[in-house]
Amino acid sequence: MNGKVNAGKLYVMGVGPGASDLITVRAAHILSELDVVYTPTGKKGAQSLAHAIIEKYLSPKTKVCTYHFLMKADMAAKQVVWDEVTQVLQEEVASGRKVGFITLGDPMLFSTWVFLLQRLVSQQMASPSWLEIVPGITSFSAISAASMMPLAMEDQTLAVISCTASETVLEQALLNHDCIVLMKVYSRFPLISNLLQRHNLLKHALMMADATLPTEQCWRDLATLPLSEKEWGQGLSYFSTILVNKNWQLSG
Amino acid sequence: MNGKVNAGKLYVMGVGPGASDLITVRAAHILSELDVVYTPTGKKGAQSLAHAIIEKYLSPKTKVCTYHFLMKADMAAKQVVWDEVTQVLQEEVASGRKVGFITLGDPMLFSTWVFLLQRLVSQQMASPSWLEIVPGITSFSAISAASMMPLAMEDQTLAVISCTASETVLEQALLNHDCIVLMKVYSRFPLISNLLQRHNLLKHALMMADATLPTEQCWRDLATLPLSEKEWGQGLSYFSTILVNKNWQLSG
Repeated sequence: MNGKVNAGKLYVMGVGPGASDLITVRAAHILSELDVVYTPTGKKGAQSLAHAIIEKYLSPKTKVCTYHFLMKADMAAKQVVWDEVTQVLQEEVASGRKVGFITLGDPMLFSTWVFLLQRLVSQQMASPSWLEIVPGITSFSAISAASMMPLAMEDQTLAVISCTASETVLEQALLNHDCIVLMKVYSRFPLISNLLQRHNLLKHALMMADATLPTEQCWRDLATLPLSEKEWGQGLSYFSTILVNKNWQLSG
Repeated sequence: MNGKVNAGKLYVMGVGPGASDLITVRAAHILSELDVVYTPTGKKGAQSLAHAIIEKYLSPKTKVCTYHFLMKADMAAKQVVWDEVTQVLQEEVASGRKVGFITLGDPMLFSTWVFLLQRLVSQQMASPSWLEIVPGITSFSAISAASMMPLAMEDQTLAVISCTASETVLEQALLNHDCIVLMKVYSRFPLISNLLQRHNLLKHALMMADATLPTEQCWRDLATLPLSEKEWGQGLSYFSTILVNKNWQLSG
């Protein structure tokens, strides 16, 4: 895929947390010039969200394709899909097209795209010219801005963790850092809430779901929320995140 | 500052790592409609950089003012400046203007802006309507995209730390996390490099300076770099950052 005149190119773009105007000027420009764009389906609500974010920037000439990563399959089944999508993208580029591939948030942070990156490039080599990765606004930057609760500054430290991590990992992060971002809270809310209570951090924490979308919700007093699995396990959006800042006090 | 018709508003915008087109579509739009914009001076190279990023989006009618935060003064002197700039911004908003205030990167992560935020809003209250904070692309998202070395995924954890933190804090972060972002490396390069060597992490680390700018430099093999203070203490850009990913191997 090297050295061709008029060779194709793959643009992997983070499209941010949800609001259409929180994509970069660069991504908006690239989207308007693509031959084909691949958008995700599969995660709860992600299909319509990713498409809704980019729709206004696309040229009518751009072909829209979807890709679907299995989220709950076993590793072998997942790998088959990653291999297949990687091959499709390679073929598109080889045939000389300008190809877009979009991910929510930032493509290099907690993104399934990285499984494709591992297949497309060598870890030892510098970046190839047929691939461009465009960074995106992370959900935690958007939540911090919308809630006006800052993250780390000066000599403070920040940890960013998915709530699918083990209880030990989550607890150590809460103990060792000034600021902690806990992503993908949803069914783990009772566990996280108990950890926050045990370490006297409830008054330094807030939770936001669907940041920057019309359905955005912010809970600034987690101490008053019900803890039952039943209440939160089903109801909480996939896009729910807790921010903790030990130097910022949200309630008495 | 509440309840006024045609009241002013303060827009605090992250303008990203350096490239003009890595600001958000929202920030570009807001910049084109401002009465006045405040841009930073003081950090090495930051004056021209912040202005260069936003220049093309400003209306000719927008007044450009600069603010200057003391970086090496004592706390009392710094606080006087933060009080003064806060008062200027409050007066601008009170007089009904659309006021912009820009910061490099993201305004809520390792940003001096937060000292002003602490003066402008109550930590216990929801976000006031006269203030909007627009998130920005962080330097580490930009570096990860440009170098094509990913950060944390799935159950992995990420720590983000300024190299001005203590050696103990830096070492603990390197031991406890899968991925580590070490910001503001410059004169601390010899210390960081020794820590990476001690924990066998040199082959999992890269350093980038001036990401997304024409002067961008990427060092993908830190093991071959000279360690002397003399070599790095002066020469390395203020905007130098090291990324570590224990699951990504950059050299043999």
